[in-house]
Amino acid sequence: MRSPSTERGEMYQGGYTGKILRIDLTEKTYKEEPLPEDVAKDFMGAAGFCIKYIFDEVPGDADPLGPENKLVYAVGPFTGTGVPCTSRMAIGAKSPGTGAMGLCMTGGYFPLEFKRAGYDAVIIEGKAEVPTYLWIKNGKVTFRSAEDQWGLMTSDCQQSIRDELGDQNIRVSCIGPAGEKLSKIACIINERRAAGRKGLGAVMGSKNLKAIALRGDMEIGVADPENFEIFKKRFRKRMKDSPALYPHFAKVGTSGNFDNVSALGILPAKNFTATGQFLPSATIGPDALKSRGVGRIACAECPVRCSQMRLAKEQPYAGILAEGPEFESLYAFGSMCGVDNPDAIIAADRMCDEFGLDTISAGVIVAWVMEAYERGILTKEDTHGMDLSFGQHESMVRLVHMMGERQGLGDLLADGVKIAAEKIGKGSEKFAFHVKGLEFPGYDVRGAKAYAVAFATSYTGADHNKGYAIQEIFGVPVPYAVDRLAVVGKGKLTKWNQDWRTAIGDAPAICIFPVDMATGDIALENTADLLRAITGMEWTADSVYEVGERINNVARAFNTLAGFTRADDDLPERLKTEAIQEGPCKGQSIPQEDLDLMIDEFYEARGWAPDGIPSRAKLEELRLGYVADRLGQA
Amino acid sequence: MRSPSTERGEMYQGGYTGKILRIDLTEKTYKEEPLPEDVAKDFMGAAGFCIKYIFDEVPGDADPLGPENKLVYAVGPFTGTGVPCTSRMAIGAKSPGTGAMGLCMTGGYFPLEFKRAGYDAVIIEGKAEVPTYLWIKNGKVTFRSAEDQWGLMTSDCQQSIRDELGDQNIRVSCIGPAGEKLSKIACIINERRAAGRKGLGAVMGSKNLKAIALRGDMEIGVADPENFEIFKKRFRKRMKDSPALYPHFAKVGTSGNFDNVSALGILPAKNFTATGQFLPSATIGPDALKSRGVGRIACAECPVRCSQMRLAKEQPYAGILAEGPEFESLYAFGSMCGVDNPDAIIAADRMCDEFGLDTISAGVIVAWVMEAYERGILTKEDTHGMDLSFGQHESMVRLVHMMGERQGLGDLLADGVKIAAEKIGKGSEKFAFHVKGLEFPGYDVRGAKAYAVAFATSYTGADHNKGYAIQEIFGVPVPYAVDRLAVVGKGKLTKWNQDWRTAIGDAPAICIFPVDMATGDIALENTADLLRAITGMEWTADSVYEVGERINNVARAFNTLAGFTRADDDLPERLKTEAIQEGPCKGQSIPQEDLDLMIDEFYEARGWAPDGIPSRAKLEELRLGYVADRLGQA
Repeated sequence: MRSPSTERGEMYQGGYTGKILRIDLTEKTYKEEPLPEDVAKDFMGAAGFCIKYIFDEVPGDADPLGPENKLVYAVGPFTGTGVPCTSRMAIGAKSPGTGAMGLCMTGGYFPLEFKRAGYDAVIIEGKAEVPTYLWIKNGKVTFRSAEDQWGLMTSDCQQSIRDELGDQNIRVSCIGPAGEKLSKIACIINERRAAGRKGLGAVMGSKNLKAIALRGDMEIGVADPENFEIFKKRFRKRMKDSPALYPHFAKVGTSGNFDNVSALGILPAKNFTATGQFLPSATIGPDALKSRGVGRIACAECPVRCSQMRLAKEQPYAGILAEGPEFESLYAFGSMCGVDNPDAIIAADRMCDEFGLDTISAGVIVAWVMEAYERGILTKEDTHGMDLSFGQHESMVRLVHMMGERQGLGDLLADGVKIAAEKIGKGSEKFAFHVKGLEFPGYDVRGAKAYAVAFATSYTGADHNKGYAIQEIFGVPVPYAVDRLAVVGKGKLTKWNQDWRTAIGDAPAICIFPVDMATGDIALENTADLLRAITGMEWTADSVYEVGERINNVARAFNTLAGFTRADDDLPERLKTEAIQEGPCKGQSIPQEDLDLMIDEFYEARGWAPDGIPSRAKLEELRLGYVADRLGQA
Repeated sequence: MRSPSTERGEMYQGGYTGKILRIDLTEKTYKEEPLPEDVAKDFMGAAGFCIKYIFDEVPGDADPLGPENKLVYAVGPFTGTGVPCTSRMAIGAKSPGTGAMGLCMTGGYFPLEFKRAGYDAVIIEGKAEVPTYLWIKNGKVTFRSAEDQWGLMTSDCQQSIRDELGDQNIRVSCIGPAGEKLSKIACIINERRAAGRKGLGAVMGSKNLKAIALRGDMEIGVADPENFEIFKKRFRKRMKDSPALYPHFAKVGTSGNFDNVSALGILPAKNFTATGQFLPSATIGPDALKSRGVGRIACAECPVRCSQMRLAKEQPYAGILAEGPEFESLYAFGSMCGVDNPDAIIAADRMCDEFGLDTISAGVIVAWVMEAYERGILTKEDTHGMDLSFGQHESMVRLVHMMGERQGLGDLLADGVKIAAEKIGKGSEKFAFHVKGLEFPGYDVRGAKAYAVAFATSYTGADHNKGYAIQEIFGVPVPYAVDRLAVVGKGKLTKWNQDWRTAIGDAPAICIFPVDMATGDIALENTADLLRAITGMEWTADSVYEVGERINNVARAFNTLAGFTRADDDLPERLKTEAIQEGPCKGQSIPQEDLDLMIDEFYEARGWAPDGIPSRAKLEELRLGYVADRLGQA
């Protein structure tokens, strides 16, 4: 075991390795750089590091699939310290799916191994000449031929690398065939976890980078062990005492949200032409999945074990195992496609994991095909003879496979619903569910207005993990409980939700579930207390929150440079012009004027100009004057 | 690291752990027994131990799927010593597929880990009340619930157990859905290796035993290290110098045999109605597979790395990875089914590995269905609407899936071609390719007469790994080169082939490929030299050979007790009544009188009575008087 204290330079702060690894795939070279103290202070870690380095180093107009795009992996100061649920990391790049800042959070065992291999972040530049994987072990980087892994499904790829390197404890982050084929809905997969959405798998593919394999044994020290133990224990106790976390969430995972969202009347069904209330829990909800449960797994250092393993029971899917389906996959392949066969959803979920496809995007694309098929815009001639009416689960699974291989119609679909709808035309753009090119998550936000603002304004597009409207969906944290159908106040609330969640989850690198369910309204204080003890730096609730705000401003600035304007902070047409037809939210829609009002309020809360561009004043307040300079602001 | 010398009792001989583990699944108990010295001397190890304990402890009339059947895992004295290619083991039980002695050899990493966990053999008795897996670590056995693994494909099962036990270096031997569903063609799978044929997966399934997970760190000592090094080096040097082993065999694996067997005119095609000469190497042979190669893997401690990984290229199979297809799978799913699509063969191969189905058996069954379909014995009504003419590869792959799940027609087929043909009748028995219920390997033995005798008389049924007629197929070893079409002398040769190969491969536990290709005509001496140095016992070429003969006699005696008679030493009807229609073997068949002549000669060479029952004189010569007693012989 190496002692970190002997390895770190003077920039060392507890909780950080103090090192950034920069890899040039074109030149096959690498070098270590110190982590600057002000970067640690201003951006904290993980999502903060990714967005900072991408803003600084990737031109706004860069081709996401060109060698000037950079892929950044970063863990946070929490990772590896022993705080529960902190084997988390961010992966970022300019997104091929949206052209905007792309940022994913992921878990598993890979993030912990990454930190133990000695790095706070790895910045990957250029493009390898031939298929390559990186083998990083305790500070040594090897560029290895991935000729034998190219074309492999993700689970086969991970096993192949472990076998080739002769160490079963290696942790691997990789792409499947979808990423290799530059699908703009391709994920990066580590173990059974995805860094999903935004097509970052295609960035790896464009760099001829199949995988990153890691091994490390560095111990991560903290600056103030005594206080660290106190705050860690407090967090553990709150987790243990949380009635939401145990036993409920641990036992059903995110699938439990299916019943919740359905009861709220906002489970999107049949491409948002219906709500999911026609689907009782026993069809594809948690009750149906319970009978298919074969145990739970966890990310490293997580006592909750929310990952439910489910095994398909009936033909033709029997024997197929999936981690999940998580709530979002249940929505995308279930209610959204009108599919009431849980085994088909399990099969589609596993297929996505193997091809390295995003489940939300894939399901939303199929739902769009289904509506286009039912409207006669696509015919059997386009669908290789398949009946693609809503509910046709065998056709759905086949179509996912075709997307993974970019075969036939799947080739058109593999770049996302926005591009597919633009190519097909005939009015199909009007029912293509995405924002900025990112397919819509499983919330009919006509019945959750703050969440609508989050989807419209997130720097990543329609992203359920950015600015989650926990108050609207779960009625917590209590001080912020709000009327989810109200319009006024939702812009302001969304600003807070975006910054708060970035600050307490994405930047320190900790799973948002225990943070939400156990720390509640002391989340900022809890994060600050732990950060102080871990890093030895001064941290307060306010300064933690400010990191969230800073990150969201830098990301927005990057998008501005990439050409995004207020016009892109929009919602799919149907949500603005058609009302929900049934259930508790019957009659709800978001007319353009309501959306405008909420967005005006959001910009104002952010201190941005009415055109949505961050103001110099706000940026300077956040110590981001150089960002304002790059935006060319007076 | 535990020192083996402090762990062993007085029965210790170098190379053995000296311990047998006996597990009672019914009572959930286990105990260690010493390995008796005379068992080590008389039966050497691996196949010898399996057959000895099954003969001694399993009644001849036991129901193979009942609790009185026993499953024996055994390594040999070579395993774990550092002799190359010795991570090999035998698994045995009364076979559900044949009702005869069932014995498989397998490799991978599991055998080495088994030895290092501290045992020469594990005897598994009874039946667990609920799905169970065994967790064996350095002498400690835990009975764990396999509820979360039941129903899982084999690769998912292995990963699930490693995750559950929190150790990625655990090695697992398990069954897939086919074994759970008691398919009589079910395998046991460890990593990507199968203990194939004979349905031993169903024995595990019948015992509610999903898997055995192992970890061990015992070092295996040898009695005479100085001489051991000399003989090990000699073996290594002969391996290195072998022109057959490197580069040819290492680069193509067993697929290379496809061209060889095809050139001999004995590659069975379309259920033995044709030869495979219509299939050039570039369709499904090694040339076609080369373009799908994605590296090679090895069993533990093997420098050859003959396991070729192949990735399917074309739709609808693109992205499917298989280890192999080995020669036998190429035959079974390729020429035998008239399939010229290499990717379909790769897909069927992987599917078998995941369901835990034997590839030879599965392919031969499909070929039988195809002939029955072409003859109108089975119609689309029986085949769920599928066209099952020869060459219909999508139907073939679908049918394999249905066998794995015992769905529809697959339920009938999952118990093997003999039972299926008996149930369907209408003359289909005449073209069901099996001996004693074991489906036929990829050699049209009308053109290799000693191999015909081997298939007719092997204690396991039509088994390419028992009594391989190396002289007929490869013209080596030179002193034994023979006219493969001749009849006279083939009974005698087969006796020698069976005993020799058992003695130099199955009993010491070493891969037969390097032994064949590197030791050639000094194989017996090489084995004896290594055994002397490893065990400290007296071993000569003659005493090594005698172990092979002893094992084959005990196995035959078990089969006699199980009700097998001379009438079962037979060949499929077509081989006796129809001649090969084309190629170098045109006109060849094995009329009953030729078969009778060869079998008479074989029995005589074996010292058995003309009814095929081992004589007391022969048994006593082999120190097997107690076997004669049990046979009730005067």
